[in-house]
Amino acid sequence: MAQTTGTIHGVGLGPGAQDLLSVRADRLVRNAKHVAFFRKAGRPGQARRIVNGMLADTAIEFPMEYPVTTEIPLTDPRYNQIMSAFYTDCTAHLRRLAEGGEDVVVLCEGDPFFYGSFMHLYTRLEPHVPVEVVPAITGMSGAWTATGAPITWGDDILTILMGTLDEDTLVHRMGQADALVVMKIGRNIDKVRSALKRAGKFEDAYLIEYAAMPNQNVQKLCEAEGKVTPYFSIIVVHGQGRRP
Amino acid sequence: MAQTTGTIHGVGLGPGAQDLLSVRADRLVRNAKHVAFFRKAGRPGQARRIVNGMLADTAIEFPMEYPVTTEIPLTDPRYNQIMSAFYTDCTAHLRRLAEGGEDVVVLCEGDPFFYGSFMHLYTRLEPHVPVEVVPAITGMSGAWTATGAPITWGDDILTILMGTLDEDTLVHRMGQADALVVMKIGRNIDKVRSALKRAGKFEDAYLIEYAAMPNQNVQKLCEAEGKVTPYFSIIVVHGQGRRP
Ligand SMILES: C[S@@+](CC[C@H](N)C(=O)[O-])C[C@H]1O[C@@H](n2cnc3c(N)ncnc32)[C@H](O)[C@@H]1O
Ligand SMILES: C[S@@+](CC[C@H](N)C(=O)[O-])C[C@H]1O[C@@H](n2cnc3c(N)ncnc32)[C@H](O)[C@@H]1O
Repeated sequence: MAQTTGTIHGVGLGPGAQDLLSVRADRLVRNAKHVAFFRKAGRPGQARRIVNGMLADTAIEFPMEYPVTTEIPLTDPRYNQIMSAFYTDCTAHLRRLAEGGEDVVVLCEGDPFFYGSFMHLYTRLEPHVPVEVVPAITGMSGAWTATGAPITWGDDILTILMGTLDEDTLVHRMGQADALVVMKIGRNIDKVRSALKRAGKFEDAYLIEYAAMPNQNVQKLCEAEGKVTPYFSIIVVHGQGRRP
Repeated sequence: MAQTTGTIHGVGLGPGAQDLLSVRADRLVRNAKHVAFFRKAGRPGQARRIVNGMLADTAIEFPMEYPVTTEIPLTDPRYNQIMSAFYTDCTAHLRRLAEGGEDVVVLCEGDPFFYGSFMHLYTRLEPHVPVEVVPAITGMSGAWTATGAPITWGDDILTILMGTLDEDTLVHRMGQADALVVMKIGRNIDKVRSALKRAGKFEDAYLIEYAAMPNQNVQKLCEAEGKVTPYFSIIVVHGQGRRP
């Protein structure tokens, strides 16, 4: 009997709280036989941590350890080569499982198609084996909800920027934005602070660390002067549009 | 014995599929004694429709019917007056319930703090009674997932525009965007089409109607020429950023 090819599920987990997984994601995670996830070498991995206690005892885990994270600058051509080889390796393993008839759940922080690493597997797998993506609550939704204020009103334009952009680009786009989200803060925090000041938005900015996680912390950015921010930080400036 | 004040829960339902509710939202909706939701007069209401079959038999429903939707232009000062009075009325009812010790679930499409009507209740209720917001999967996450391609890569800047903006603003911001989401399409579709053409993005645009709903439809916008689009439509242009 011909074997059916398994499916790779890219499952968004949302910002961090277990009860913010979708019902669909919850079901897939609890029933998964194979579970894959990215992590930094030597770290548990945020996606894996979100599902602590949810996996079946018999689940087979496949941690995919980033060969580099911040050791090599993004602009170095070796960065792309090393990462590309890494994604190709991961893909080969997942594809073998699927071709052997196994379903695999790939755990993804937030929404998989929104600045997620899963997309690098997705584009490599999708021509060969069935891949299904489960959308999820983004980290930024968790972040603005944590501030207790709506992010956008009426016709507000929302601009989403990565802290990895150069400072002049940040300043220019921040200046134009009605509502603003800045992600990938971490070691870019000083540049982001400076850009917000130059764009006149520093006083209105909120810093959200670990949104929807047990160690969630919300404060005005101007009250966090000199603070070192973790990778899981988002900066938000709320829109001020039409409000009947 | 002093009565405890009830809590108003602004519960995001996600883009449309029942199994895309979060576990937290699912639990709140199924156990709710009082359920409030917005709808157009004479229509079932999209948020209410999403939870069909999930409410307890004994749930008490409070439909909040918009007094106007598109009959009066947004720019007419009467629009704001009428809507403001409407939100004040709704708030009075919800506040009375909470002060009487009752919890209320307000059903919200997508994420409540992301261009949602709930925020108009939130700001009026929040000074007086406990209000909790449950973030959710946005309509746009449902939309880009439906296209089968990631919305953003690397440092892509994502711009989110409302179809209600004037055409020149749309053209300017579309022209700058790496990745683009346009919401509130409906009767603004001709203006949005024209703006996308002027910004050189028309050929790359996807139209997603009813994302994650049973009648979901995805097509290239240029293959939907002349099509009348429903209120639940989103246009997406994918980013083309760094991809190792
Ligand atoms: C590679 S992106 C992944 C985004 C994710 N796919 C999403 O939908 O939110 C990583 C960045 O997301 C942001 N992030 C995601 N979840 C977060 C959370 N719960 N709290 C704070 N920041 C978060 C941080 O800015 C972090 O640097
Ligand atoms: C008032 S906004 C509400 C947005 C909602 N709070 C969210 O998080 O997506 C309404 C607009 O959202 C978009 N929208 C929301 N859900 C959608 C879906 N499932 N499919 C298509 N469009 C949707 C449409 O563009 C619609 O005009």
